Parts: sequence; structure tokens; C-alpha cells
Amino acid sequence: MTWLAFPSVSTNHAHKPDIDACAEYTRALLIDAGFSDVTRIETPGHPIVYAAWQVDPALPTVLIYGHYDVPPPDPLALWETPPFVPTIRDGQLFARGASDDKGQIYCHIRAIKAYAETVGKPPVNIKIVIEGEEEIGSPNLQLFIIATRERLKADIALVSDTPMIAPDRPSLCTSLRGLLYTEIKLRVAATDLHSGQHGGAVPNALLELSRLVMSFKNAQGEVQIPGFYDGVPLLSEQAREAIRALPHEDAAYQSELGLSHLEGEAGYPTLERRWYRPTLEINGMWGGYTGPGSKTVIAAEASAKVSMRLVGTQDPTVIAQNFTAFVHAHVTPGVHVHVDIHSMAPPVQVAQEDRFVRAASVALEKAFGVASVFQGEGGTVPVVADFKRILGINTVLMGLNLPNDGIHAPNERISLANLERGMQASVHFLAEVATATT
Amino acid sequence: MTWLAFPSVSTNHAHKPDIDACAEYTRALLIDAGFSDVTRIETPGHPIVYAAWQVDPALPTVLIYGHYDVPPPDPLALWETPPFVPTIRDGQLFARGASDDKGQIYCHIRAIKAYAETVGKPPVNIKIVIEGEEEIGSPNLQLFIIATRERLKADIALVSDTPMIAPDRPSLCTSLRGLLYTEIKLRVAATDLHSGQHGGAVPNALLELSRLVMSFKNAQGEVQIPGFYDGVPLLSEQAREAIRALPHEDAAYQSELGLSHLEGEAGYPTLERRWYRPTLEINGMWGGYTGPGSKTVIAAEASAKVSMRLVGTQDPTVIAQNFTAFVHAHVTPGVHVHVDIHSMAPPVQVAQEDRFVRAASVALEKAFGVASVFQGEGGTVPVVADFKRILGINTVLMGLNLPNDGIHAPNERISLANLERGMQASVHFLAEVATATT
Repeated sequence: MTWLAFPSVSTNHAHKPDIDACAEYTRALLIDAGFSDVTRIETPGHPIVYAAWQVDPALPTVLIYGHYDVPPPDPLALWETPPFVPTIRDGQLFARGASDDKGQIYCHIRAIKAYAETVGKPPVNIKIVIEGEEEIGSPNLQLFIIATRERLKADIALVSDTPMIAPDRPSLCTSLRGLLYTEIKLRVAATDLHSGQHGGAVPNALLELSRLVMSFKNAQGEVQIPGFYDGVPLLSEQAREAIRALPHEDAAYQSELGLSHLEGEAGYPTLERRWYRPTLEINGMWGGYTGPGSKTVIAAEASAKVSMRLVGTQDPTVIAQNFTAFVHAHVTPGVHVHVDIHSMAPPVQVAQEDRFVRAASVALEKAFGVASVFQGEGGTVPVVADFKRILGINTVLMGLNLPNDGIHAPNERISLANLERGMQASVHFLAEVATATT
Repeated sequence: MTWLAFPSVSTNHAHKPDIDACAEYTRALLIDAGFSDVTRIETPGHPIVYAAWQVDPALPTVLIYGHYDVPPPDPLALWETPPFVPTIRDGQLFARGASDDKGQIYCHIRAIKAYAETVGKPPVNIKIVIEGEEEIGSPNLQLFIIATRERLKADIALVSDTPMIAPDRPSLCTSLRGLLYTEIKLRVAATDLHSGQHGGAVPNALLELSRLVMSFKNAQGEVQIPGFYDGVPLLSEQAREAIRALPHEDAAYQSELGLSHLEGEAGYPTLERRWYRPTLEINGMWGGYTGPGSKTVIAAEASAKVSMRLVGTQDPTVIAQNFTAFVHAHVTPGVHVHVDIHSMAPPVQVAQEDRFVRAASVALEKAFGVASVFQGEGGTVPVVADFKRILGINTVLMGLNLPNDGIHAPNERISLANLERGMQASVHFLAEVATATT
């Protein structure tokens, strides 16, 4: 899959030419699949690739969304084969983006191509949006959706950017967490200081930051930002029962990911913590001397990337304000501190009873030969909330990858079997949608 | 001073050719000063430059020590002029190494050259050792001193690698803190994990490291490593009185260094905390995503560089063991953790009554026109303990730079006035030693 060879790392400006080349290749892929009308829409950031195939106005319209950008591949040293040299090994396709999200969206492109090459056209109208900024919070996508809301009109959206619960257990996701991603920078001195000359007398930015970071959660793992839990729903006993029935074991989960132990908010089982509870994580932290060997320095500055996952009706805007105030209130008086908000996306729920969700359930069962399950997802697909709010449509979240595919990590992969069944599921889904009744 | 143009960064292997070129230039400097016998001694690390000038066996011998290596100049962005382009501005010479230690040792080289060019030879026998690994803990110096102890025989050592207490207040340092420099690396998962998919359920290496780092000291700033304070002497009331008499004000100190506040062990004044109390500092810390923008990752690994300054008879070997055990005992069970020891040096005290220390006091007064003071120093000059233990000689610690010269920090500098007076002080000191009586 040549698509995977493009290092389309959206967060790093050095990769701008790769992003552009990847957008161009995405256009070519869609033309090859049979779309006659493929446009590349420039944004202040990276381009969006858009195509439409109007078959018959009387038929339903499916709006497919995916993203061609990827997160950085570092740490590079841990990849067994280079991240942008797609490699097949043991029935798996390895590359950054193999699973998140090029591999999954590729299933739908190939399904359309299959219809084009056999019956000459898909069984429903298709609109497809493939953006290049999902991994940096889609800063320009919402404006694009608002500006082109008429052109994007559809009956249902289809997104494959969530995992299956387990191999051979196709999954439809009905709940996504929201995201608030921040960066904290604090400063305690004009410059780095010699730790011999001044050690013991001056503040240390790294100690100050560690202290701050430790104040975000209490010993029970509960987030201490005021108002943080406003709008967090408690699950019904029925919903908890359904989660317990899903294939998950703490011991297997821990061993599969090589975890030293499990951690998190006290009183909630693992899947509930991952999908239906809000959380706060430190995504990165640095300061002082971080090179090889030793340097006897006291850090003047230290930084941390801190993100929160949100559920229910938690409002990222309100929490961003409360978080910023909390940070300012919890550093030692005199310390200079600044909080940047990198991205925000509200949480979203999808109705299990939607006729198109039911159509997806039928399609997955036909492709995988086993009934699909409903599950939540701890990650964030911000576009789903935008589709609901701006276009007024629900989204089918058809997971085609696996939890241990290593997305955002070294040796990201997708199984060739899932790629094949994903294409079949997409073929069936489009056929089911054509005949879906309200 | 061309010497300062060499980026002789000892901790970074990429600078090996620069180190070699700098050693060669150091040889040339000594030959230019009049030494006929200058050798470059290879070590498993960076070379030592050694020279001797035997004037008369009846005269005392001064062993001068300095180092031509420097710590890394980062963060580069904060330098007003490039660190390895020596630049004069406002009566200051700016460059990495201007103050620590090339500038200071240069004063002694110039003093010898002055004698050579006027009376043809110095007034005492001179031996000089200029090494290239001081900033990485002098891993090969001790073996060199042991192996060449006969050749290095001298009556007194002279080291200028400590600061004056204030401008126009020449200082002799009579106490140096020791150093124990460690690096901690911990791991909580096999790979970095997606913070959406797994956030709330898995351990976070950065949170684990922050928790560990916060456990090293209590709220009073007291180090919690068992046995840490064994061998820490309490100052006499007389010594405390002498410190109080030194020119120091907390408010001026805080404002000069741009500090947000002062911090440290409760119950001890600032100069006592800097010179005569042991301490523990975080010198660097990193993990997770530290690049531009956002990446929704939970760090599998995190690292910290942690160093301790030691006083009295604190034993770095014992503390290294206790520290390592403390780290292992204070991570969450299951977390993989490893502690590396980068360097160790014991603390050292120098007798104020030594006849050569008195000679230095006279020399400083002649050069600066004002009486010198005795002070402690928070930093570490490991060679001083080695000279005492292996060669059986004391060391005169003649500080020629200023506390705000920015050593180990951006915009390191030395005042041209101090360079000039440092040369004069060295000229006077050698003359005083020639006539010093027991």
C-alpha cells in the first residue's frame, strides 16, 4: 500500500511537503476507485481531499470520513522495520498509519472500487472527506464542514477510526470520549543555574512541575480540577452488565501491553475507565539537561503536555478555563506559568437503534461470520460531534482494527485478514444502506 | 582568546574532534608561555595536557590544575552571541568556558608567560595539569594522578575554578561540596500507548517519575534517603557569624538570578544552604512526546538526572547505594527501574592556616587592592580531594570569576577587569610562594 510510504506527520512542519504529496496521492487513489470529481481543498493548515459520486438522488447518501495524516513515528529506534516502509510480516502489514487511519479508510475506497469495476457504480450516493489534520485536533475541519454544509448533506456518516474489541469480534462504537489537550510551561529563574553553586537555595523548575503534575489527581485517581466531573453520567446497571459481557480480562490486557500494573480511578472496572470515565494524562514532560552523560544544571524552565478525555456532557471550554485557573493557583507564588490549549473536542454518543447502525451490524456479521458487539471508545473522533451538530446526521463507527495494533506507537500494524474483511464489510454496508428502512 | 573558540564539550561524543583540537591548542599555549616540555597524555576518554618547568630544586613547587573542557552550551537560543564566538561587550568577554574554566586558568598561563618574557623564568617550580573531562566528573584523572604521583610531586596545588563572593571582594575557598550524579530510567509498559484508547486504565511513566521525584525531599526540603545526613557537620556559631558578615542579601540574590522565589532546607540561611548543607537536585527529566504540537500518547518510559551535593564526611559510595535502594523501594511494585551512577566525588575542606593559603591571601590583596575573604563553595572540584589523598598536598582555591558569570548557562562571561587582576594575582602568588615560610 504505497499510501503508507508517505510520512504525512501533521504535527511537524518539516513534513509539510510529505503531507502535500500524500494529499495528492489520496486524490489519485479516489480517481482510481472510480470517482470522477475529486477536489483538493486548501486550508490554513493541511489540505482536505473531497470527492462525491452522485448515483441517484432517490438513494440514500453515505458520507465517509477518514484522515491521511499520522502522528510522529518516534521513538524510531523501537521500530523493527522503518515506519514509512510498509512491510508484511506474519500476516500483518506494518507501517505508521497502517491501522490509524489509512488502512481502515482504504477498506472503503476498495469497496467503492469493487462496485465500480463490477456493476459500474456504488449502490448508494457517496461523499468522501479525507483530511490531513486529525492527529493535531482537526483545527480546520469544522470550518470546512460549516462552509460546505450544503455540499456535504448526507443521510449517515461512516467512520472507521476505532478498534474492534477483539479479533473475530466486529464492533460498532456508540460512545466516544472528548479531548482537551493543553501544554504547560513554567519558569522559576532567568537562566539555568549551576547546581553546585546554587543547589539548595533556588527553586527547580522540574521539581515545581512534578509537584504541579502530582496535584492534578488524588490518590484515588480522581481529577482535582474544580467542576471536572460536572456532566459525567453514571452508567446504568444494564450498561455495566453489557460491558462485563464483553471479552476483556485485566490480566490478559496487562500482559498484552506489557504493563507494570493497572492504574486509574478507584471503583470502576477497566473497560469503564477506558470508555465511559473522564481522565487526565501527562503526554509529555521535559526540562533541564536531557542529553547523554551529565550536566550539573538546575532547570529554569520545564514543560508538560497534559490532556483530558471527556465523557457525557463535560464541556471542554469550561474545563479548559478551570484547568488553567487550577494550574495558576497550584504553582508556588512567583513562578511564571503559561497554559496553551492545543485542541478541544466534545464527547459524543451514537444511538444503537439508528437504522444505519443496524445496517452496519448486519454488514459486519456477513463479512466476519459472527455477530457484532456494541462498545465504547476512549479515544476521540472530533468530526463525529461536528457531523451531528452541523449536518444533523449520526455516524456509524465501524471499527476495523485491533486494540493491540499499536496505533500512535512503534510497529503500528493491521492484520491482512482484517483489511480483507473490512473491504467486504464496506461492500455489504453500502448494499444494506441502499435498502435500509426507517 | 582563540582558546574559547573550541567547542570542547566533553559530554558529547560528537565533539571528540573539537576536544582533540582544543587539547592541541592548549599545548601550544603552554609552549608559548615558556614551557619547553609539554606533553599530551592520552586517556580512554579525552587527553590531559601536562607541562613542568623545573627552575631550582631548592624552590617550592606549585602544581596548577585547570580544565579545557566545557559543558554543553544549550539552550542555544538564549545566547546573545554564539557560545563559541568569543565576543567582548560592556567590559565582559562572552563565550562558553570564559569563566569555567579556560578564562581562569588563562590568568596563570599569562602570569608564567610574563615571568618568562621579563626575568626569563618563574620564581618557583611549576607543574601544570589541564584536563578535558572535568565537566563529566574527571573519570580518568584520578588514575592519571595515581600513575604519575612521583612526577606530580609538589608543595601546594593551585586551582582557579571557584567564584569570588562579589566584585572587588577576592575570595579564597576553603570548602567544596562533593557530588553524586545519577540517572534514573523507569518503564511501565512495553510501548507508548494511545492516551484515548488506554487513558484512565494504565500507568503513566511520567506520573510515576513525578511521584518518585517528589519523594526525595519532604516539605521542609530535607532529603529522605536513609542515612543521607550521616557525616554532615553543624557549623560552629563562629563560622555562621563569619558567613553572616559576607556580602550577601537574599533579595539581591533573588533579583540578580531572576528567581521566582528562594527554596531549600528549612532553618538554614542561603549561603549556608549553598556551601555547607548537602542537597539533591533534579538536573533533567523527560519522557513521552516532547516535540511541537500535540501527540496523544501515554509514556511507557521516563528518565531523570538526579544529583546530590555532599559535605563534611558524607560518603558518595554509601549514598549511591542508599539512593538506588530508595528508588527501587519507592516506585509502584511492577515498575522496571534502573539507576546509573554517572560520577562521584567526596567533599573537601582546606585549612585556612596553610602558609600557601596565607600567601594567596597576600597576593589577592596586592592585585585587587582589598583584603580577600574566606568562603565555601557549593560546587565540586573533585581533583582537590585527589590531590590531598594521593599527593598529600593542600590546594589553594583562588576564585577569579563572579557568581553571576553564568557558568553552565547561556551567555557565560568573565569581566576583563577580573582577567587582568587574576593575572596580577597569579604573578604575586608565585612570588609569595617563593618566600613563604612554614
